[in-house]
Amino acid sequence: VEKTLGEIAAYVGGCVSGDPELVIKDLKGITEAGPGDLSFIANPRYRRYVSMTRASALVVSLDMDFPGLNLIKVKDPYVAFGRLISWFYPQERESPSVSPQAYIDPSACVSPQATVYPGVFIGAEAEVARGAILYSGVVIGKGAKIGEESVLYPNVVIYPHCLIGSRVIIHAGAIIGADGFGFAHPGQENIKIPQVGIVQIEDDVEIGANTTIDRATLGRTWIKRGAKIDNLVQIGHNVTIGEKAVIVSQVGISGSVRIGDGVILGGQVGIVGHIEIGDGCIVAARSAIHNDVPPGQLLAGAPHMPYQKWLRMVGAMTRLPEWVRKVTDLAHRVAHLEKIIEGKES
Amino acid sequence: VEKTLGEIAAYVGGCVSGDPELVIKDLKGITEAGPGDLSFIANPRYRRYVSMTRASALVVSLDMDFPGLNLIKVKDPYVAFGRLISWFYPQERESPSVSPQAYIDPSACVSPQATVYPGVFIGAEAEVARGAILYSGVVIGKGAKIGEESVLYPNVVIYPHCLIGSRVIIHAGAIIGADGFGFAHPGQENIKIPQVGIVQIEDDVEIGANTTIDRATLGRTWIKRGAKIDNLVQIGHNVTIGEKAVIVSQVGISGSVRIGDGVILGGQVGIVGHIEIGDGCIVAARSAIHNDVPPGQLLAGAPHMPYQKWLRMVGAMTRLPEWVRKVTDLAHRVAHLEKIIEGKES
Amino acid sequence: VEKTLGEIAAYVGGCVSGDPELVIKDLKGITEAGPGDLSFIANPRYRRYVSMTRASALVVSLDMDFPGLNLIKVKDPYVAFGRLISWFYPQERESPSVSPQAYIDPSACVSPQATVYPGVFIGAEAEVARGAILYSGVVIGKGAKIGEESVLYPNVVIYPHCLIGSRVIIHAGAIIGADGFGFAHPGQENIKIPQVGIVQIEDDVEIGANTTIDRATLGRTWIKRGAKIDNLVQIGHNVTIGEKAVIVSQVGISGSVRIGDGVILGGQVGIVGHIEIGDGCIVAARSAIHNDVPPGQLLAGAPHMPYQKWLRMVGAMTRLPEWVRKVTDLAHRVAHLEKIIEGKES
Repeated sequence: VEKTLGEIAAYVGGCVSGDPELVIKDLKGITEAGPGDLSFIANPRYRRYVSMTRASALVVSLDMDFPGLNLIKVKDPYVAFGRLISWFYPQERESPSVSPQAYIDPSACVSPQATVYPGVFIGAEAEVARGAILYSGVVIGKGAKIGEESVLYPNVVIYPHCLIGSRVIIHAGAIIGADGFGFAHPGQENIKIPQVGIVQIEDDVEIGANTTIDRATLGRTWIKRGAKIDNLVQIGHNVTIGEKAVIVSQVGISGSVRIGDGVILGGQVGIVGHIEIGDGCIVAARSAIHNDVPPGQLLAGAPHMPYQKWLRMVGAMTRLPEWVRKVTDLAHRVAHLEKIIEGKES
Repeated sequence: VEKTLGEIAAYVGGCVSGDPELVIKDLKGITEAGPGDLSFIANPRYRRYVSMTRASALVVSLDMDFPGLNLIKVKDPYVAFGRLISWFYPQERESPSVSPQAYIDPSACVSPQATVYPGVFIGAEAEVARGAILYSGVVIGKGAKIGEESVLYPNVVIYPHCLIGSRVIIHAGAIIGADGFGFAHPGQENIKIPQVGIVQIEDDVEIGANTTIDRATLGRTWIKRGAKIDNLVQIGHNVTIGEKAVIVSQVGISGSVRIGDGVILGGQVGIVGHIEIGDGCIVAARSAIHNDVPPGQLLAGAPHMPYQKWLRMVGAMTRLPEWVRKVTDLAHRVAHLEKIIEGKES
Repeated sequence: VEKTLGEIAAYVGGCVSGDPELVIKDLKGITEAGPGDLSFIANPRYRRYVSMTRASALVVSLDMDFPGLNLIKVKDPYVAFGRLISWFYPQERESPSVSPQAYIDPSACVSPQATVYPGVFIGAEAEVARGAILYSGVVIGKGAKIGEESVLYPNVVIYPHCLIGSRVIIHAGAIIGADGFGFAHPGQENIKIPQVGIVQIEDDVEIGANTTIDRATLGRTWIKRGAKIDNLVQIGHNVTIGEKAVIVSQVGISGSVRIGDGVILGGQVGIVGHIEIGDGCIVAARSAIHNDVPPGQLLAGAPHMPYQKWLRMVGAMTRLPEWVRKVTDLAHRVAHLEKIIEGKES
C-alpha cells in the first residue's frame, strides 16, 4: 500500500502539517520507523522519542506540535492509527467452507456460511451460525451455540450448553464452561457440588488466549456485551462481568462476584468471592479486592483502598526503616527528658 | 423434574417447616430463584437476600428459622443442595465407544469399555482403562496410563509415562507432565537439566482447566488421593500435594515443595521451592510462603505470618500515614520540651 | 544402565573419593535414593539430608567432604548430574515421518525430515524445517515458519506469520501470536486496535506449557536467543525478551516492555507497560516493576526497590504493630511531660 500524507489525513479526518504529497509506504512504532514510514504519538511517554525518530511523518493530537516534522493532527491519534492499520493491512477474508475433515455430529446445525477447519469437533445439537469461523482443534460441546461472525481460534473449548453471542472473538486455548470449583468441607471431605449451569457470552466480547471461564453451579456465568478479557484470566462460577468491562491479564475473579459496567481491572488483580464492584471502578494492577465497592472508585493495594491513600501508604511504607529509627531516637530523648524531670521532681 | 417439598426433604434426610405438598420444579441461586424454585442458604453472607427472595422454599441449616417461609432444615445445606442438583440434573451417561476417528497406536491398550472421541491421540504402549472418557483433542503420551472412570476433557495433554488414577477428572487444556523448569547457571548459560521423571495423579483427584503440572527431574511429581486443584495453577517438578488438599486458582508452587494432607491454599498464593507446608495448614489468598511451615497453621501475607498477626499488621499499615504524622508531631513536641528543659538547665 | 563410580567420574571429569568399582544402577533425588543409586548435592539446603541418605554415592562439589561416603567430586554438581541424567536416560529419537492423518495445506512446505504427528494442522504457505517435531494437536498458522530441530509439544498454537527459530522447545498448550490486548477508550468504547505484527522466537529458546506470547501491534514481539520461559507466563505485544533471560512461572509482562539480556524474573512478577529492565537484573518472586531499571540491579517488592532495602522494609513492616504501640506510649509520656512542664511554666 502506498498513500500520500494528504490521502491518509483525509481518511482519518485529520489535518496535514507539512507536505501533503509525501508518500507513506508503511506504518511502524516510533522507535522502529524509518524513511517512508508513518508513526504516531498517543502515550505521552513516547514524546521523548520524537527527536530521534526516523519516521517520515507522525500522527499526533491536535494540541501537539513538532516544528519541522510532517504531521497529521487528529483528535485521537491512537484510534486514528488503529483505523490506518486496518487500511494498510486489510484482513483477508476466506470464503466460508466446512471441512470434511472436521467431525460434526449429525444432530448439530452448522451454517453452510460458517467456516469450519479440519480437526474441529462439533457435538450433538450444537449450533454454529453464519459467518462464524472455527479454527483447527476447536471443540464445541453438546448443545452449545456459536453466534454470527464469531471467531474461535485454535483449540478453544466450549463446554456443553454454553452460549456464545455474535462477533465474539475467543483466542486460542481459552476454556469456556469447565466446572466451577465448588467442594463442600474443603480440605476434609472435598464433596463435589455438581456444576450444571452454563457460561453465556454476549455479543462483541473478546477473550484472551488460555483464559478460563467456569460454568455456573446453577444459572449462568455471564460475560456481558462488549467486555474485553485478556490472556490467562480466571473467572469463577456464577460471576457476572459488566458491559464493556476490561479485564487485564492474569486477573483472578472468585465465584459469584459481580463486576459492573465499564470496570477496568489491572493485571494480576485478585477478587474474593461473593462481592460486587460498582460500575466504572478502576482497579490498579495487582490489587486485591475483599469487599463490596461502590461505583466510580479508583482503587489500589492489597487489601484495596482508595488510590490516593494507597500512594501515601506506599510512600510511608518505603520510608518505614527511617521512621523506625526516628521513633527509637524519640524514645531515647523522651526517656532522657523524663530522667531530668523526675530528677527535678524528686 | 417435579417433586414435593416432602419428597425432597426425605431425599436429603431433612425436616419440612411449612407445606410438604408444595411442588418444586427447579433449583436456583437465591437471587435468581422465583416461584416454583427451591434455593438454599449456606454462606451467611446470603442471609441478607432471604427477605427479598422469590423462591418458593429454601434449604437451610437446623439452627436457622425464617417464619412464614417454606423451609427444609438439614445439618449441612450446601451438601444437601449438591445432592439435589445431582437429583434434578442427572448426568447423562453415554454408552462407551471408541471412535474410529481417534488415532490409537497399535501397541496401546484401550478398554472397549472406554469412551474415546474423534480427534483423540493415544501413543504407543499407553493404557486406557474401562469407563474412562477421553474427549476430542486429548493427547495421551507414550506409555501413559489412565485409570478407570477417569474423565479427560477436551485438549488435555498427558506427557509420556505419566500415571493417572481412577475417577480422576481433568478439565480442558490442563497439561500434565511438561518438563520441569530446571536450568543450571540461569541468566548466563541456561544449561538444560533433563527432566526424565513422571507425574503421578492418584484416585479421585480433580484438576482445573489450563492447569500445568510439571514432570519430575527424576522420580515423580505426586498428586495424592482426593486432592482438588483449580484452574491455571502451576505445580513445579518433584512437588508432592497431600491427600485432600485444596489448591485454588492461579496458585504457583515451585519445585520440590511438599504440601501436606488437607492443606488449603487460597487463590494466587506463591510458594518458593524446596519447602514443606505441614498437614492441615490454611493459607489465605495471595500469600507468599518462603519457608517450612509446621502443621495446622493459619497463615496470610507476603511474606507469610500467622493470620492474626497479619490482620494487625495490615490494620497498622493502612494507618501508616497517620502514624507518620503522629511521629512528626511528637518529634516537634519533644524538641520543644528539650528546648525548655535545656533553657532551664543552662 | 549400570556403570561403576570410576566410569561415571571419568564421564563427568570428576574424582572419586571412595570405591571406584562401586556399581551404580540408577540416579535419584537424595531423599528417594537407595542402595545402588547415585544422588547429588547442589543446593546447600539439601546438605542436611546427607546423614540420612541411603544413596550408595553422591556427586558433590570440590569443597565438600563427607567422610565414609562414596563421592564424585566435580566443579559443578548440578551440571554434572544433568549430564548423567542424559547418559542414564537417553532420549529416544524416532525416525522422522509425516503422518497422513495430519492436515497439511498444499501450499505449505514441510521437510520430509520433519516429524508430523496425526492431528497436526499446517496452514497455507507455512514452513517446517528438517528435524522439527510437531506433536498431535499442534496448529501452525498461515505463513508461519518452524526452524530446524524445534519441538512443538501437543496443542501448541502458532498464529499466522510467526517465526520460530531452530532448536526451540515449546511445551504443550502454549499460544504464540494471539492478538495483543489493545483497545482505545477502555471501559467506554473499547475500540479494538488491529494487531498485525508477529512473534519472533530465536534459536534455543524454551517456552513453558500454557504460556501466552502476544503478537505485536506492528513489528514484532521478540524472544531472543537462549531465553527460557516457564509455564503460564503472559508476554504482551511488542515486548522484547533479552538473550538468555529466565522468566519463571506466572510472570506477567505488559506491552512494549524491554527485558535485557540475562535478566532473571522470579515467579509471579508483574511488569507495567512501556518500561525497560536493564541487562543482568534479578527480580525476586512476586515483585512489581513500575518504571525503568538500570542494568545489574537486584530488586524485590511491590512496588519494587533494591533487595536490601526491601529486606529492611519487610522487617520493619512485620514489627509495625509493636512500633504503633511504642508511638502510642511515647505520645502519652510526652503529654505527661508537657503537663508537668506547663504546670511549672505557669
